[in-house]
Amino acid sequence: MEAWLESVYSDGTLDFVSAPAPRLGQTVTLRLRCAADAPVDAVLLRSFPNGAETLRAMEPGPVRRGLRYYETELRINEPRVCYQFCLVSGGEHYFYTQRGISSCLPGRSWDFRLLADYVQPAWVKEAVFYQIFPERFCNGDPANDVREGEYAVDGHPTLRRAWTDRVLSYEEGRCLDFYGGDLEGIRRRIPYLQGLGVTALYLNPIFRAPSVHKYDCVDYFHVDPHFGGDEALARLSADLHEAGMKLILDISINHTGSAHRWFNRDCLWFDKSVGAYHNPAAPERDWYFFGPDGSYKGWWGIEGLPVLNYRSESLRDVIYRAEDSVLKKWLKPPYSIDGWRFDVADVFARNDEIQLAHELWPQIRRSIKAENPQAYILAEDWGDCSEYLRGDEWDSPMNYWGCGRPLRQFVGQGDFFLRRNPALARVRSRITAPELEDRVMQYLAKLPFALWENQFNLLGSHDIGRLHNDPAVDPGEYRGAVMLQFLLMGAPSVYYGDEAEIGGEPEGNEGCRWPMPWDTDFEAGERFRFYQGLIALKRRREALRRGGMKFLCAEGGIVALARFTADEALVAVVSTEDRARELRLPLAALGAAAPAGERDLFGTAMTWRPGEDGKSVALTAMPHTAYLFDCEMRRP
Amino acid sequence: MEAWLESVYSDGTLDFVSAPAPRLGQTVTLRLRCAADAPVDAVLLRSFPNGAETLRAMEPGPVRRGLRYYETELRINEPRVCYQFCLVSGGEHYFYTQRGISSCLPGRSWDFRLLADYVQPAWVKEAVFYQIFPERFCNGDPANDVREGEYAVDGHPTLRRAWTDRVLSYEEGRCLDFYGGDLEGIRRRIPYLQGLGVTALYLNPIFRAPSVHKYDCVDYFHVDPHFGGDEALARLSADLHEAGMKLILDISINHTGSAHRWFNRDCLWFDKSVGAYHNPAAPERDWYFFGPDGSYKGWWGIEGLPVLNYRSESLRDVIYRAEDSVLKKWLKPPYSIDGWRFDVADVFARNDEIQLAHELWPQIRRSIKAENPQAYILAEDWGDCSEYLRGDEWDSPMNYWGCGRPLRQFVGQGDFFLRRNPALARVRSRITAPELEDRVMQYLAKLPFALWENQFNLLGSHDIGRLHNDPAVDPGEYRGAVMLQFLLMGAPSVYYGDEAEIGGEPEGNEGCRWPMPWDTDFEAGERFRFYQGLIALKRRREALRRGGMKFLCAEGGIVALARFTADEALVAVVSTEDRARELRLPLAALGAAAPAGERDLFGTAMTWRPGEDGKSVALTAMPHTAYLFDCEMRRP
Repeated sequence: MEAWLESVYSDGTLDFVSAPAPRLGQTVTLRLRCAADAPVDAVLLRSFPNGAETLRAMEPGPVRRGLRYYETELRINEPRVCYQFCLVSGGEHYFYTQRGISSCLPGRSWDFRLLADYVQPAWVKEAVFYQIFPERFCNGDPANDVREGEYAVDGHPTLRRAWTDRVLSYEEGRCLDFYGGDLEGIRRRIPYLQGLGVTALYLNPIFRAPSVHKYDCVDYFHVDPHFGGDEALARLSADLHEAGMKLILDISINHTGSAHRWFNRDCLWFDKSVGAYHNPAAPERDWYFFGPDGSYKGWWGIEGLPVLNYRSESLRDVIYRAEDSVLKKWLKPPYSIDGWRFDVADVFARNDEIQLAHELWPQIRRSIKAENPQAYILAEDWGDCSEYLRGDEWDSPMNYWGCGRPLRQFVGQGDFFLRRNPALARVRSRITAPELEDRVMQYLAKLPFALWENQFNLLGSHDIGRLHNDPAVDPGEYRGAVMLQFLLMGAPSVYYGDEAEIGGEPEGNEGCRWPMPWDTDFEAGERFRFYQGLIALKRRREALRRGGMKFLCAEGGIVALARFTADEALVAVVSTEDRARELRLPLAALGAAAPAGERDLFGTAMTWRPGEDGKSVALTAMPHTAYLFDCEMRRP
Repeated sequence: MEAWLESVYSDGTLDFVSAPAPRLGQTVTLRLRCAADAPVDAVLLRSFPNGAETLRAMEPGPVRRGLRYYETELRINEPRVCYQFCLVSGGEHYFYTQRGISSCLPGRSWDFRLLADYVQPAWVKEAVFYQIFPERFCNGDPANDVREGEYAVDGHPTLRRAWTDRVLSYEEGRCLDFYGGDLEGIRRRIPYLQGLGVTALYLNPIFRAPSVHKYDCVDYFHVDPHFGGDEALARLSADLHEAGMKLILDISINHTGSAHRWFNRDCLWFDKSVGAYHNPAAPERDWYFFGPDGSYKGWWGIEGLPVLNYRSESLRDVIYRAEDSVLKKWLKPPYSIDGWRFDVADVFARNDEIQLAHELWPQIRRSIKAENPQAYILAEDWGDCSEYLRGDEWDSPMNYWGCGRPLRQFVGQGDFFLRRNPALARVRSRITAPELEDRVMQYLAKLPFALWENQFNLLGSHDIGRLHNDPAVDPGEYRGAVMLQFLLMGAPSVYYGDEAEIGGEPEGNEGCRWPMPWDTDFEAGERFRFYQGLIALKRRREALRRGGMKFLCAEGGIVALARFTADEALVAVVSTEDRARELRLPLAALGAAAPAGERDLFGTAMTWRPGEDGKSVALTAMPHTAYLFDCEMRRP
């Protein structure tokens, strides 16, 4: 490929689309840039208005920092307006889509896509999330703690643990081993969170439920009393908003707990007259999937988690449609949450009996956005879920697929799903840098750009062993994975305790749910300062808040990822190789001249020299080392 | 990539899916094969039942012709069941999707896809279509000919041409230059068509309309009297079916002619009281897009082709919903057509005012299939229209995108759309063999396999200059393009006269609508025999009727494409290069040992030798030469 092609760039940010959130009927100006001295004879926009393939010449415009901007206008004539670019040079043509350059005429999979009248939750792209598993974060009110043996589930009693006790395994604790974490604890730690710098909280479920994780809900309308009840949430929400922070809550509307008052198999808190399990005449009976023999469908076959049946209109009302529905109640004052995280959204309303997902999600979206257009709709999905990401269903998945899974594999941990299979337990766990780029871009390139900016980029969560506790992962590469997480477009999410290098077994759910080690001096540690520094950068730098993104280089085990505006550029370089190697970084493609200085933003020494082509620098990437550096820009 | 990976194969045919057209709830056996001596430790099925990622080991089964078949079962639990394969070998894993092998965990774009309860028009995959532009094929009944000056459109009179007169340019003839072709002419040529061997006719529009092309319809309910009227169609249909042939008709339900009795701007055959144009109170007024000033929307801005407005329920009734609707009338006896070709389907019900395409096509499909489940739904679209190809809208587009456009580019003709743009008029017109493979497979890999078999594969049509008349195209490469067209999965379509090397300017529509040269002895020519031979092969050989398909090799300007069953294999090799070059053909991947003999099926001499690896042969591809050969299979 011709070298000048590396400078070709466009995206959906304001630098390249005059109105990134256009109205239907509006005309926008589109721009594409490439090296001002590139041998370009023509640039064309290839678009498909009302289904008809169209080519239109783009006009060469101003040059800034060595890059020429071509532009043309496009009318937003339909809800989803798609386009590509075509560049002509010396008798050759090249096409440019969200997937990059190809000489081959591309299909429509990787079109740039603008959504008309789409309201982006604009705060997300500038946010840094902090995910809290409430039972294990901080005990702010010991008066509401579970009492040892307070109740029992399936014969297993509740257990009281002291904060510094070791965490019980699932077999020992059955998710009934309580440490006393609650919402008041989180509220009291707001100063800590502000010191760390995070701007939004995502809390695992807090509605009344027997287990520590509370995915086995018994009442969607009330916060668990052991977490402090509804008042504690109102107080936490008020204080967070006062501090300029956002709050999103986790819910499983796919299933309830078997002790839920609508179901009430267990009769833990309600008598047998209540709920669908013991009473076939109960109004909630058709909210579940009962067979003629009284058996019922449980999520993943688990009897404790009966699946809800959304063929029922009254269930739709109570969950999301009515003004006093579950989803609306918590979006309204005094709780005023800023979004919902939907548990097991990948399988929601999908089973052998019903396939209602693409009917329900748009309804749920409209219901939520009617309450708060800026509410964030975050959905649990571990795979390539682009079918839900067209602008009318989810704002983002938990981005395991385009972030957590490939980043973990890049630094040498096997893929979470694959390695559970015995036949795959011993396969090469590490992916190369080109594979990392491929994994990230094959996902993003299918999405409307507005949704790139919504991505909830995570490395860890309550469902996956902590990466830093995996002995196979080099600490330098761990830092690199976190840098890349923070540079990917969207919002990074820090899982509580990662900044504290919290302990825990690298496998299984219990290992990633240890109590926060408040008794240690982790705030003095390098890891805490690393996160604090990254978070501050994400908040402060335009390039990370609203800039473009480009893989500058991906060779062998070394990757370079850039974020940039027209006026600044930040680059992360991560080597997973065993030897030092010199790498060509085409900084001119960013309008940049060189790294700014000889140390990166965290003080790591960098060795680099100007490249022979005048377009790049040659950086020596040391083994297992991560760099994040600022650039010296070219003259405007 | 490891060499053994070239032997990995699966598809949606009966060799690899026990029930290629499964019912919802059915359990099918899936198979994948690869070289029996490949270092495979495990093969897994990666599937996504109800949205949940799942891996399941496949069992090694029997070895046939050097290939081992692995198998497992999969339940068809939802309307669209998707899967991939994962192969483990010596600590590495590989993924196999419809797009081929990758070391990188693939997204969901290229999943294998089985459709539950999808009724495939099963005759299509074994058919050879012959497209006729009726006005120019054969004059069977001079009594129904247009009279010179019989009527005038926009001031231009009808013109009478003798059969061997030169064709008028658009400026001279305005599509009103009549040669007298009619349905009786087609009927009389049924013996000719049977001699050629084609099995299905696709006729350009025949309903009453002023022009020669009849896309400006004035009455969907009657065949044009100059084509012989409704009785001529009934007679033609009966005789075709008697001869074992199928018949599909062309219609534009996107727009009518401005002389249509519903619109009647022109008052050619109806007085001013009829139609929506002169009478705002007419019942058809809201079947069109009238502005407050009486202006209206025309297709592509053409006033003679007013666009229909499908917001109207009564229009939906008359076009496709009522028992006596347009689409149903012609599917019923005595016409009993076997499918519809929809003109400008790419823009149907899509314009700045309405976006109803994905609401209407499923309705239209249900309406057609209720009349005849085996009816073929063929839609005009020149681009990547995979959004319509999920099983509930079209059966196939006119496959320009995955056949005509790339094949024409492979043999050196520029892309039809691109070269219309002045900036692209002089770009490299030829694509390489890897680009050809990429173009074809990036399209097919997104479709459910059942739709691969439906593809209407064309090189020419009434809308594009004839390839054999382009002086830039080498005759040897032309033969290669036709061989590839016949080997692609689906049905090839021969445009009338291509078998006769009919004349015509290579540009523009008039150049591809010349009268059929019945006065010449073309049936004695090499080209006719070439088509006749290919058509016979397509009809006779299982590999071409229901076999799998694989690009065996794509290097530089040489491509090799194979069709095969477990028991036979046919391979086309086409060189567009200027020099002879030896090519490695991994025939063992097909269960084949060698080409069967030293001449191809058309008598072209072949030079080949066994490859050193025991898995391939080395074939010397001569410049600008096309081969189509049979294989000698390995021992079962």
